[in-house]
Amino acid sequence: MSKGLFITLEGPEGAGKTTAAVEIKRELETLGFDVMMTREPGGIKIAEKIREVILDPTHTEMDSRTEALLYAAARRQHLAEKVEPALKEGRVVLCDRFIDSSLAYQGHARGLGIDEVWSINQFAIGSMMPDCTLYFDITPLEGLKRIEQNLGREVNRLDLEGMAFHDKVYEGYQILQERFPERMQRIDASQSLEKVTADSIKVLSAVLRK
Amino acid sequence: MSKGLFITLEGPEGAGKTTAAVEIKRELETLGFDVMMTREPGGIKIAEKIREVILDPTHTEMDSRTEALLYAAARRQHLAEKVEPALKEGRVVLCDRFIDSSLAYQGHARGLGIDEVWSINQFAIGSMMPDCTLYFDITPLEGLKRIEQNLGREVNRLDLEGMAFHDKVYEGYQILQERFPERMQRIDASQSLEKVTADSIKVLSAVLRK
Repeated sequence: MSKGLFITLEGPEGAGKTTAAVEIKRELETLGFDVMMTREPGGIKIAEKIREVILDPTHTEMDSRTEALLYAAARRQHLAEKVEPALKEGRVVLCDRFIDSSLAYQGHARGLGIDEVWSINQFAIGSMMPDCTLYFDITPLEGLKRIEQNLGREVNRLDLEGMAFHDKVYEGYQILQERFPERMQRIDASQSLEKVTADSIKVLSAVLRK
Repeated sequence: MSKGLFITLEGPEGAGKTTAAVEIKRELETLGFDVMMTREPGGIKIAEKIREVILDPTHTEMDSRTEALLYAAARRQHLAEKVEPALKEGRVVLCDRFIDSSLAYQGHARGLGIDEVWSINQFAIGSMMPDCTLYFDITPLEGLKRIEQNLGREVNRLDLEGMAFHDKVYEGYQILQERFPERMQRIDASQSLEKVTADSIKVLSAVLRK
């Protein structure tokens, strides 16, 4: 395995991706793989600067297309500086969210269009599509319940207002699953962490054997 | 003329665009038009912030695709906040450099590909292509001579090293002229400022009468 393996984790809020990623990394290391876990902007200076522009709370006039282009720019830099070098060293890269998040959140849920957001991200990532994407499938309501439990607070007005948006994100991921049936492997994220990790390792073992 | 008119000025370094723009604006105002002159990032806070990321001299690891996406993002914001509102008010917008600069400089001269850079800029500007583009045509050598005269210094090693790049930019503009023969109107920029202004007004008068 000289070219490395690029794995991304995707799914709506509360799907438990980040928690599971730590377990998946540990399991893969036990199997002898050299694993790098990352997420955008991943400590890359230029990508962090771009994220600051996106997230600056005073930038209320931010246009949604500007935002999509900035996410693509930060993605490009993180990929070029951190992901590609690790893959060249033959490492397994586990990346928490990548192109599919932009397609589901901005392309579908924000209404910019999956194909349009795809085109700028194609420019950003070139041929560096993930070898495999673990899609953590959980209904928006279930995901919201988990976040609520984590935060230990009642569902507030904003959470409820956001339900239509979260439904659209979910719908976006369903569309992507149909579009990329080989690359996107569904994991039932409503299960226990142990079962989610086991299912993920099962999927990845098949990919890693190729 | 309720929808305004969007005019861009393009051309290599030393073509005299910026100087001529001031004269063109004055002439158009004499003819009774309400003119707004601008250039990216045009004082738009978010666009200025993006420019800071692009131009920060410590960002030596900036990938050329990241840079192209950042330019497109700044373009989008400047367009949405400043150009579109002015056009909606029925004004004539004179914009010093726009999409063609990215196509010539980054698409052709930097080798990213005109079609590829076109696709991200299409996402950025949507249907807001200029109604007319004044292409200030001057050979790279002539342009360089003018810059040299302006700066009152000898041509240095860096200027000379850059000639291959400036030749590519020139070549890029020639390709664009062939691709957009209606929109891009060639102005012979080797002429005097008076003649350049007169030729520009002649071209614009025809467009403004439509």
